[in-house]
Parts: sequence; C-alpha cells; structure tokens
Amino acid sequence: MSETEARRAGRPRKAVLNRERITEHALELVSGDGYESLTMQRLAKSLGVSPSALYNHVDSKHDLLQWIQELVMADIDTSVFDQADTKQALLQWATSYRNVFARHIPLIPVIAVLPVSDSPRTLGMYERVAEALADFGMAENEIVPTIVALESFIFGSAMDTAAPHDIFDTSNHQDLTPHFTQAVAAQRRSELDTSDDSFQRGLSALVAGLLANGS
Amino acid sequence: MSETEARRAGRPRKAVLNRERITEHALELVSGDGYESLTMQRLAKSLGVSPSALYNHVDSKHDLLQWIQELVMADIDTSVFDQADTKQALLQWATSYRNVFARHIPLIPVIAVLPVSDSPRTLGMYERVAEALADFGMAENEIVPTIVALESFIFGSAMDTAAPHDIFDTSNHQDLTPHFTQAVAAQRRSELDTSDDSFQRGLSALVAGLLANGS
Repeated sequence: MSETEARRAGRPRKAVLNRERITEHALELVSGDGYESLTMQRLAKSLGVSPSALYNHVDSKHDLLQWIQELVMADIDTSVFDQADTKQALLQWATSYRNVFARHIPLIPVIAVLPVSDSPRTLGMYERVAEALADFGMAENEIVPTIVALESFIFGSAMDTAAPHDIFDTSNHQDLTPHFTQAVAAQRRSELDTSDDSFQRGLSALVAGLLANGS
Repeated sequence: MSETEARRAGRPRKAVLNRERITEHALELVSGDGYESLTMQRLAKSLGVSPSALYNHVDSKHDLLQWIQELVMADIDTSVFDQADTKQALLQWATSYRNVFARHIPLIPVIAVLPVSDSPRTLGMYERVAEALADFGMAENEIVPTIVALESFIFGSAMDTAAPHDIFDTSNHQDLTPHFTQAVAAQRRSELDTSDDSFQRGLSALVAGLLANGS
C-alpha cells in the first residue's frame, strides 16, 4: 500500500474538498496528461465529486489557474536575494525558477501569459527581484523589461529540458550541414547535458549583459 | 469574392491533395484552434476528404509536423549571414525567428522539442548560424549550446508577445509590491511595447555575452 493510499484509507469516506486538495489534483492532471486535460469535469472526476460540488469551491477554470500558479511559484527559491550579491542572486533564482517549470512544462504556455494580479506569491517574487535591481542601481523603466527578458529565457529553457537526446541528429543531411555536424559532434564529446550547459551559458551572458546596461 | 474563393472556383471540383495544401490547412488549424485541434480526422475534414484519402499522402502526424516545421522555418530570414557581421546577423536572424513564431505560438512547445533530422530547412538554418559562429572564432563545443540558448530565449520571447497588456497589474496587492509597482508604472510611462523592449534588451545582452565568452 502506498503512502497516499494509506493516508486515504485513514480518512473519512468523503475526503474534505478544499483549495489545497483541488489544486494538487489539478496540477497532477496537467502534469500527467497535458493542459488540455484540465477541465472542471475531469477534475471533479479525479476528486471523486460531482462537478456541482467542485463549483461550490472554485468559481471557474480561471480561479483554478490562479491557485495552480500560487502553488507552483511557492517552490521557487527567492531567499537568495537576502544573502548573495545581485548577480549571484539572479543566477540562483533563475536556475530555481527554470528547474521548477521543467517539472511542469505543460503549464508554461499558460502561466507565461497569465495575469499575476491575484497571485500574491508571484507578485512577492517580482517584488524581491525588482527591489534587488533597484538597489543595484538599475533605472526604474528598465526593471520590468529586465524581468520579462529573464523570464522568457527561463520559460524557453525549461521547455528545452524536454528535448530528446537526438534532436540535432544530422545524419540524413550531413552534406548540407558540415559546420553544424561538427559542432554537434563536439558538443557530444564534451559529455555535458546540452540543456543544462546551454541554460548556464545563456543565463550568465544574459544576467551580465542586463546588469551592465542597467547600472 | 475573395482571392482564395476565386481560385477555388476555378479549380476542378476535387482540389488536388498535395503536400503544400495539406500543410497549409494543418497550420491554419493549429493557429486558429491550438495544437490539440490538429488531428488527422479534423485535418481530413478541413480538406474535404476522407481520412483514408489523407493517409494516402501523409503517413502520420509526425510526418505532418515535419512538413509544418519546414513551412514555418522557410519564413525565417537567414540571408543576413551573407551581409552583416556576426553580431548584427545574429540579432537580425533572432528577431526574424521570434517574429515568425509570434505568429504561430501554439506550435512553440511542439517545435521546440521536435527532432530536426528530417527538416532540411531547419538544418540549413543551423548550418548558417554554426558557420558564422565558427568563422567568428567560437570553440566548436560552444556552438550548439550557444544556438540552444538563443532559441530558448527566442521561443520564450515569442510566447511573451501574447501576454495581455495588464499582466503585471499590481492593484490588488500594492502594499506587498512597492518596488515592483513603481517599476511597472515607469515601464508604462516609457510607452514602449513591453514585449518588444524586453526582447531587444535581452537579445543584445545575450548575443554580446555569448560572443564575448566564445571568441
């Protein structure tokens, strides 16, 4: 018996329907079967309740998304802004952010364009980053574009962690691609994980450049 | 009568089913209704043919995706690598790449992890970039991670073009976010498009940093 089953067995027959449980099930649906699979109907089924019972707790899929956003953002480490200098803190925060979304790839296209107005945790995260950039001496009007540029890179890099190992296989068209074929072979010889290596190189370049412009 | 209708009216009653027409319809389905809506069944319906007639021309959804990849990649401008210096060429190519995918956002999560082995146009594009980076003096093992870092930023930035204008509205939690609220206000006063401004700032930083490390 798994730990979850054991916990369920110990519960009253009707498990409490609350925000935490609803959000966990919703996130599980998305992570397992992709974002399309998240419907109020399917979520109700996964929770073992009727859709109307679910609607008693959450008004709409929009609200559900806000809850998911809150839950996922809670895993991103912003404590580094207390300890490290701005550059180091940005590098560590961005790495944590990318690793969290690498575990929730189907959410990326949704969260990337979701208003943050009802997500205090997301706003709290932006506040930490904005404060660090302001303290660093960045001009006020450069702070939002700096955060957006970092997030674009973070989301794109999180998606890239799902790329198959052979994504750059050139064997069908080697005649067309002498330089690229050599570059792919050199990357393989390095034995570095392409996604991690690309992320760390890009992140260093991006943070250094954004801070150099903005100070 | 639209130009398309006029052309259709002039055709024999059964329009020819070929790769070009199939791919255009597939791309239209994805752009209109999202990637989930691309099934062989729905595509056959959109083309006015039976699924079995469609399967006579394309073996699988996998092959269809390769055709879509070829069609979309054809719009990205790589001619700049003939004319401009490496830095300028990378900036212009990346801007063209981001603008093309800003028109096909539902494809991004799919294309970002799709093997390129059967897409000569994608391979041709990588070859141009790899050659430019090699000519610039970048070490062979840095070329692939440089391209992946640029693409991650490009894909993330293309997704960001769909962000609503009020994505950073802080009015529900201003007490939590003094620095961020000020930064959002400053960005609005600049009257720059947030997505374009963020992309250009990030791209300059990223390209400069990657070329500085790699030469």
